[in-house]
Amino acid sequence: MYKCSLERMSDKIKTFSKFGDAGHGGITRYSLSPAAHQARQEFVKRMEAIGAKIECDDVACMYATIEGSDPNAKRIVMGSHCDSVKNGGNYDGIEGVMTGMEVLETVVAENIPHKHPLTAMIWTNEEGSLYPPAMMVSGIICYDYLPDYLKPNFVYENMMKSTPMDESEFATFGDALAATKFKGSKENRISPEKYCAMFETHLEQGPILEDAGNEVGAVQLVMGMFNYRVRFHGFTAHAGTFPMAKRHDALYAASAFLCEMHKRFDELNATMSQEFVYTTGEIYVHPCIHTCIPDEAEFSLDVRHPEPEVLDKAMAILKELAAKDWCQCTCDIEEQWKRDAVPFDKRLVGFVEESMEELGLKWQKILSGAGHDAQFCAYMIPTTMIFSRTKDGLSHCEPEHVSDEDCTAAASATLNAVLKCDASDEF
Amino acid sequence: MYKCSLERMSDKIKTFSKFGDAGHGGITRYSLSPAAHQARQEFVKRMEAIGAKIECDDVACMYATIEGSDPNAKRIVMGSHCDSVKNGGNYDGIEGVMTGMEVLETVVAENIPHKHPLTAMIWTNEEGSLYPPAMMVSGIICYDYLPDYLKPNFVYENMMKSTPMDESEFATFGDALAATKFKGSKENRISPEKYCAMFETHLEQGPILEDAGNEVGAVQLVMGMFNYRVRFHGFTAHAGTFPMAKRHDALYAASAFLCEMHKRFDELNATMSQEFVYTTGEIYVHPCIHTCIPDEAEFSLDVRHPEPEVLDKAMAILKELAAKDWCQCTCDIEEQWKRDAVPFDKRLVGFVEESMEELGLKWQKILSGAGHDAQFCAYMIPTTMIFSRTKDGLSHCEPEHVSDEDCTAAASATLNAVLKCDASDEF
Repeated sequence: MYKCSLERMSDKIKTFSKFGDAGHGGITRYSLSPAAHQARQEFVKRMEAIGAKIECDDVACMYATIEGSDPNAKRIVMGSHCDSVKNGGNYDGIEGVMTGMEVLETVVAENIPHKHPLTAMIWTNEEGSLYPPAMMVSGIICYDYLPDYLKPNFVYENMMKSTPMDESEFATFGDALAATKFKGSKENRISPEKYCAMFETHLEQGPILEDAGNEVGAVQLVMGMFNYRVRFHGFTAHAGTFPMAKRHDALYAASAFLCEMHKRFDELNATMSQEFVYTTGEIYVHPCIHTCIPDEAEFSLDVRHPEPEVLDKAMAILKELAAKDWCQCTCDIEEQWKRDAVPFDKRLVGFVEESMEELGLKWQKILSGAGHDAQFCAYMIPTTMIFSRTKDGLSHCEPEHVSDEDCTAAASATLNAVLKCDASDEF
Repeated sequence: MYKCSLERMSDKIKTFSKFGDAGHGGITRYSLSPAAHQARQEFVKRMEAIGAKIECDDVACMYATIEGSDPNAKRIVMGSHCDSVKNGGNYDGIEGVMTGMEVLETVVAENIPHKHPLTAMIWTNEEGSLYPPAMMVSGIICYDYLPDYLKPNFVYENMMKSTPMDESEFATFGDALAATKFKGSKENRISPEKYCAMFETHLEQGPILEDAGNEVGAVQLVMGMFNYRVRFHGFTAHAGTFPMAKRHDALYAASAFLCEMHKRFDELNATMSQEFVYTTGEIYVHPCIHTCIPDEAEFSLDVRHPEPEVLDKAMAILKELAAKDWCQCTCDIEEQWKRDAVPFDKRLVGFVEESMEELGLKWQKILSGAGHDAQFCAYMIPTTMIFSRTKDGLSHCEPEHVSDEDCTAAASATLNAVLKCDASDEF
């Protein structure tokens, strides 16, 4: 078994954490921003130092490749993203980019034989923090392979017009793309013709590995999910002048619904070995004035589970509740999106599990509740993911942390899984 | 008994509804805006037409006065405001201004004898829609007479710096004031030296008169109230990656609290003859992203009742609930403001009740749940209010409606109450 270098990985973590450093432990590194360009430049510098060939595609994804011994073999790629959410942490995305770099550096430093060309990759604009949606560029690149219900969300021309959610020097994603020096040609895109496997290494973003005392996880699939808006309609009146019994208070209705939904969902979860997770992250009321009874209230509902049958059961509860009267308000629900679970390539998952076991790592099988570029890529070429232990399960925030040791362990697992893939006749 | 003119009142309603007409039944007429200037100009035109003397004070309140037979008598004033909320209705505020005008027009047209000078008045910036706070100018004018706990909210210098909540051509209320041609001198302010009584006629803004089949209400007092922010603190994590049992979801906490508070408040209300009204009009969560568990949630709570003991009981419930754990989140509460009930002058209330009875109107005693300039004025000079029936109890919205007949009935009640005040030895 080969191992990656803790020292080299630590140096990368320290270096990349400077690009977009927000001054209190985390970073803000929007896609194609000056901070992201610093990270990309560092990627080029370090990959050129080991003799890798740098390529960019037309949506600014970057590829650093070292050749293999078989001139006919397709590339094996390790990739993730270098952009972050606003006030995000030092690991989400960039850990997978650093892993790809570390694997290549280890292969070169230790002169590890391999047939396939090996590529470290940066996926552009995964977070979609500045230019929505999330996973925009993997959606563009994998477009032809996506199921039909996902396609409308990633039409190239529309994505180019995506406008920033925050201040940006560019009016659209297309403008930012036109201005970057990392825009290359479409032929360089990751594709089934040139690539045979994709590995994405990422922090877990949850507490499951930590709670179980495990360092790494072999990801089996990305959970399916549905996302709804749940809306309540009452009428507004003056806070001081309207008797309680006559009120049709949309916020009271939303709160009562939300509590009943928790009760019903928790009852359903109690009957299952693998719980579904559900989240009401947004809420809005109208007119949102302290002296007015709200006439409209709306919250978001996000539900995730690997099995469609379980999502269907949760949906049935949602629809049953929505048909009721809530504090004299009506309720309607609207689907925002819904997507099936995405299973990863069983052979690649097997290589990852064998590597973790053989390295003597504390590991487990795990599911991904979050979305990743790997999930779109899985529709196009064999793909899998490796998770690393996340301190307190926190991510998308500045305290997000993975120890240098755990990053290195995940990189070693990735390296050996890639080498097993390289050695396999099936790839 | 004297009666006001339905025809003349209808004409005023029709005319004033044009100033700030939003095109779908209501108006937006911010204080000191061009639309408000049109209304003020119409006030001048109509009051000059009956020979009233027009004065403006330093905060742009306007006074139209006809002399009485006793040169030593103080003025009796009827006033309200001509500004509206955004997309408000055609009655809130302006009904009381039109009432003052109609009373003066009736007195002049019918040559009704009276000792006291009679004044129709426009209070500036009651709604505070553009320049907060509400009742800003009555707060300024009555400042010296306000209880200490209200004073800090109405410091003149600070009010002049009040900045617009919406687009405005002026940077501060002081700038808007400096630019208006209706700014006059401070000596013209309503004061106990020159004025002996204030009547404010206003739509009820609630459904109580309508439900009881009454046309008008004799307002006894403005309810006391407290306004709190109720905040919940959990922590955020990713919607897809964090197990349900480990979540500290601030929105779930806020919803559970809100439902329990409704239950406890309703139980308390069931024991009382006069219910308290309570409203949670605003809610915010952080980070308010559909894929993030909210770490912070906050809602507003507004509670109103005439008796301090009842407000104390509601407050005790609030504090008891805030001390509990809510879905693994902590709760804290913060007082925004609190004010005592303001009883109106019993003699003036009596004049209003007698007038309503003698006019054969369908009337009742009623409380004001909303705040009005009359409530600050009551600290300075004897004051009372007359309410008129409000269609469906709606106000602060475009469907807000009072029939021409009900406006005229309320004006007649005001006229006769003013004449009783005029005839009384006590004023």
